[in-house]
Amino acid sequence: MKIGIIGLGRIGKTHLKAIQKIDGLKVIAVSDIDEKQCNQIAEENKIPYSYIDYNKLIANKEVEAIWICSPSKLHYEQVSAALEHKKYVFCEKPLEIEIDKITALLNSFSDIDKRLMIGFNKRFDSEFIEAKKNIAKIGVPTIVKITSRDPAPPTLAYLKTSGGLFKDMTIHDFDMSRFIVEDDVVEVYATGSINYIEGIDGVDIDTAMVTLKFKNGIICTIDNSRQSPYGYDQRLEILGTLGMLQVNNKKVNHNSFYTTQGKQSSVYQNFFLERYADAYEQEARAFLDCVVTKREFPATAYDALKALELAEACKKSLLENRAVRIS
Amino acid sequence: MKIGIIGLGRIGKTHLKAIQKIDGLKVIAVSDIDEKQCNQIAEENKIPYSYIDYNKLIANKEVEAIWICSPSKLHYEQVSAALEHKKYVFCEKPLEIEIDKITALLNSFSDIDKRLMIGFNKRFDSEFIEAKKNIAKIGVPTIVKITSRDPAPPTLAYLKTSGGLFKDMTIHDFDMSRFIVEDDVVEVYATGSINYIEGIDGVDIDTAMVTLKFKNGIICTIDNSRQSPYGYDQRLEILGTLGMLQVNNKKVNHNSFYTTQGKQSSVYQNFFLERYADAYEQEARAFLDCVVTKREFPATAYDALKALELAEACKKSLLENRAVRIS
Amino acid sequence: MKIGIIGLGRIGKTHLKAIQKIDGLKVIAVSDIDEKQCNQIAEENKIPYSYIDYNKLIANKEVEAIWICSPSKLHYEQVSAALEHKKYVFCEKPLEIEIDKITALLNSFSDIDKRLMIGFNKRFDSEFIEAKKNIAKIGVPTIVKITSRDPAPPTLAYLKTSGGLFKDMTIHDFDMSRFIVEDDVVEVYATGSINYIEGIDGVDIDTAMVTLKFKNGIICTIDNSRQSPYGYDQRLEILGTLGMLQVNNKKVNHNSFYTTQGKQSSVYQNFFLERYADAYEQEARAFLDCVVTKREFPATAYDALKALELAEACKKSLLENRAVRIS
Amino acid sequence: MKIGIIGLGRIGKTHLKAIQKIDGLKVIAVSDIDEKQCNQIAEENKIPYSYIDYNKLIANKEVEAIWICSPSKLHYEQVSAALEHKKYVFCEKPLEIEIDKITALLNSFSDIDKRLMIGFNKRFDSEFIEAKKNIAKIGVPTIVKITSRDPAPPTLAYLKTSGGLFKDMTIHDFDMSRFIVEDDVVEVYATGSINYIEGIDGVDIDTAMVTLKFKNGIICTIDNSRQSPYGYDQRLEILGTLGMLQVNNKKVNHNSFYTTQGKQSSVYQNFFLERYADAYEQEARAFLDCVVTKREFPATAYDALKALELAEACKKSLLENRAVRIS
Repeated sequence: MKIGIIGLGRIGKTHLKAIQKIDGLKVIAVSDIDEKQCNQIAEENKIPYSYIDYNKLIANKEVEAIWICSPSKLHYEQVSAALEHKKYVFCEKPLEIEIDKITALLNSFSDIDKRLMIGFNKRFDSEFIEAKKNIAKIGVPTIVKITSRDPAPPTLAYLKTSGGLFKDMTIHDFDMSRFIVEDDVVEVYATGSINYIEGIDGVDIDTAMVTLKFKNGIICTIDNSRQSPYGYDQRLEILGTLGMLQVNNKKVNHNSFYTTQGKQSSVYQNFFLERYADAYEQEARAFLDCVVTKREFPATAYDALKALELAEACKKSLLENRAVRIS
Repeated sequence: MKIGIIGLGRIGKTHLKAIQKIDGLKVIAVSDIDEKQCNQIAEENKIPYSYIDYNKLIANKEVEAIWICSPSKLHYEQVSAALEHKKYVFCEKPLEIEIDKITALLNSFSDIDKRLMIGFNKRFDSEFIEAKKNIAKIGVPTIVKITSRDPAPPTLAYLKTSGGLFKDMTIHDFDMSRFIVEDDVVEVYATGSINYIEGIDGVDIDTAMVTLKFKNGIICTIDNSRQSPYGYDQRLEILGTLGMLQVNNKKVNHNSFYTTQGKQSSVYQNFFLERYADAYEQEARAFLDCVVTKREFPATAYDALKALELAEACKKSLLENRAVRIS
Repeated sequence: MKIGIIGLGRIGKTHLKAIQKIDGLKVIAVSDIDEKQCNQIAEENKIPYSYIDYNKLIANKEVEAIWICSPSKLHYEQVSAALEHKKYVFCEKPLEIEIDKITALLNSFSDIDKRLMIGFNKRFDSEFIEAKKNIAKIGVPTIVKITSRDPAPPTLAYLKTSGGLFKDMTIHDFDMSRFIVEDDVVEVYATGSINYIEGIDGVDIDTAMVTLKFKNGIICTIDNSRQSPYGYDQRLEILGTLGMLQVNNKKVNHNSFYTTQGKQSSVYQNFFLERYADAYEQEARAFLDCVVTKREFPATAYDALKALELAEACKKSLLENRAVRIS
Repeated sequence: MKIGIIGLGRIGKTHLKAIQKIDGLKVIAVSDIDEKQCNQIAEENKIPYSYIDYNKLIANKEVEAIWICSPSKLHYEQVSAALEHKKYVFCEKPLEIEIDKITALLNSFSDIDKRLMIGFNKRFDSEFIEAKKNIAKIGVPTIVKITSRDPAPPTLAYLKTSGGLFKDMTIHDFDMSRFIVEDDVVEVYATGSINYIEGIDGVDIDTAMVTLKFKNGIICTIDNSRQSPYGYDQRLEILGTLGMLQVNNKKVNHNSFYTTQGKQSSVYQNFFLERYADAYEQEARAFLDCVVTKREFPATAYDALKALELAEACKKSLLENRAVRIS
């Protein structure tokens, strides 16, 4: 399958690298507004087509599938165009930060579940897959606790256009909660605070605690922090009727030092590029598998919609200091 | 100091054992409605006075301090009587399940902080004391997560008169949150479900998730379960601006088995009698120290009042499906 | 059973405390060359008889069993006298540092296995008992690794009369190896070095590595150090045909701190008084049980002899730089 | 640098994959006696030259460096030929199983330290490098314990020509001991047994325990097993004057299950291809760096000689049941 990538920032380059490891996928076109970088990457990787204008990439008839790794505000436009050109599309999260636009996509493209995959990378991580596969060992889940803390915050400029913590960061965790619980949320309660980032008062929060109540009675909490001095924290804990399951973080090394100060062991992996390196590869592999076998993608526009609805509800909950029902 | 104990059930016997280990404390009187058991315990432990009627114990002039370990509904009456008799009093939690009665006590006895200590045993546990002492290592706290899960539920009969999960079980965790955060709560949100106990629908819940928002901005969650198949779960996790602190559970043993099935290690200590055996001893020691040095007790009627207010607010939050402000 | 204790140093006081916790055992006599301390301990514990001369304690007809906690060089004489007076005897390790004397005891008292118990306290520790009980989980043992490191060395004066590291310290581990392997050793190899203690060159070593080859083919190593900066290290690891078993150390607390420096957790328990507090109690309980049921003690003079033979063989191996066969 | 690889078995393919990840290294020739497989691999990887006869690869003037991944018995001949053809050479361990031949190589090629690198892959593993880098945290080392256990034994046919466990398996650990201790061994003692493999009696052992005494007084043990039911076990533990350092194994995943059976966590990584995947890449990178900067390789023929001498001494120790001095 011949791939075009739109956007060659940090995440675009990560996907390029991941795709190159998959037999059956081949990047033949790239597009970025930074012409120099775009051409250089194309050259280094022997990619024949390099465009400043992403429309040309979309229009390229050889391109069968498009990876959208551009800034979030461009996603809707690019996804729409790509789908109209009958391409298969992979879009980084968030697909959109306005619910109406996702609804429009769902209404416009009836086969969208088999044409558009969303970059909820945690769904492709072997740790969480292992947890989901073995969930019966702990009986029926009753409490799910998701912890997701970034090592350090993004720039204030980024934060101002991010759509807010719930849409930008918690969105992954909303999706993870649905991945694990496999049901709909009926009520949310969100609270937050500012502890790390100067100058975001009025713009956003940097610390959040969310409670989700699912229709089947399962209670889920998500706690987020834009700063985690001890490394990227991506834990999952599930209490069930027969036991508890934990997914723990990965350490940088397995050395331990025992001294008069006690036992000292390694920090956690620094950030998502290390922690989810393999998940990006599995994501690309799953994309190919679904296309080949004509199956629905494991993360669809519908999933993006449901996660965004939770983000909107949490935003409302935070602003209005109240629990919010999801209809 | 000469002690009288009212109530010789499980917790009464635990306190008797703990007190006997403390130089300077001596149990000279016991009272229980089960005359036979009461006399037997008195005899075995060479305790001179044994009463069916607790009023006689309270009236005994030799008795300087009274440990109230009777059923909760008797606490108010017995505490009042003992304070009126100028005794020092230790009262098991909950002091009361009606706010008005605690307020009445506070109004009636001006020196109550030096006369009445409440059995919030977790405050005397070396693990939590160690955590509090070292909290500066993680900077300023931002998120506090308390997990408190019992190995198995009490009887339905007990549950029906317990005042409900928040007043009976979470009460310890409300107090722990105040012990750690050292501030007042401004908003609570509670949700719960029934997963383990048959026949409690309409009576109580057996699983709960509570969010507390403190005035200083710290967010705290408490998750409770009446059943924990893997043992008594008493964890504390604090995220701070410089790091994270965890208090973990204690295992029954330190053996590990590595086989084709992976690594298998021990279950956690079964329940509070094992987990807090030492804390009960420290509690009795702290009681004596405060009396001798004429200092305020580390857990007072005021603390009981604050914890009960949180329990009431959570009950309201659960029933009305909404966040509740604490004035 | 009425007990007399000879020797009220650190270990004597530890045994006194342990015995007092056992229903059915009662200390009625103590003896120590420090008259003042002896009388004081007797008074504080309401022990009727206090002697400077241990012979008087042995001769006391009320005393049924004697705990010998005196310096090692007195053990032989005191044990002999006590056995001649038809007492049950508990003797701290080492029973003796000369093989001939143990042989003499074995020859003199035909029922010695039911009359004399040796203080190999590790045999009574719940961790090692748990390991032994579950050994089948790892199939048939092939390699046993015992680690035994003291937090800090004793005085030079003590070391000079201790009989050397193998007889004084490794003796416990020799016995542990026999407890686990349940067979005889056919060959030993020992090597050692001096790393921590000034002035012991020519007197003793402070670091040792021993290899024991058992008749059944199991290979066992013991590593000892007189100094362990990270706390008392008492580990056991067994490789078997189906898996591996580890007994790990006990930490002082269960707090963990996660910062930019990684994860910091507690030191290990400091020394044997903490680590084996419960084992001393179990030891006293086992003593009573064996006497009551007329069973052989779990640690006998024969066990002391076998451990001492290994110590002698290791000493020879170290001095002669060679493997030594045990006939 | 243009590379030729001789031998395309499991380890040859592993090196091919590792080399392909390094910028600056390019495989242009391969050789294997299995013509079909050799041609297929060449084709799939766009490698221009494919030979049945390795001499042709060695004679190919474009080839600058040769990776020798053939069966051990061919190493000497191939290394000699490649060095004579002025190639840089990487040779898998063991370089040779006869000491005389390594001595001959050392005598024949004066610049061999900059021309021949030995595949002691553990030297390139980030865990062991991290340990060595931080060794000062534990002061001066006193005891080093290396554990090296394979998940399952090789075939009997392989074992018969392997040169025996010490030359085939322990060889890595001998080198690791020298890597850590940075001194010479003065005495060895080895013992072993047969626990897992039927039919090797008289051929080899499958379980071994080695003690190495270094000139500087450090004592090192190595324990090996050809079978480890719980996964590949590659631990290192160092006791020092200020503390202890441990390098632990890597788990397959970070999921833990807590039930009435206790805590169950993942098995360890299965074998060297997983455990040392990254080390093989670092090894190739180090090779290139040394050639470019004209530095001595981190693992030389001299290191191979020293490891082999230890293997010979251990073989003698095992056969003669005695400690063996190294002159």
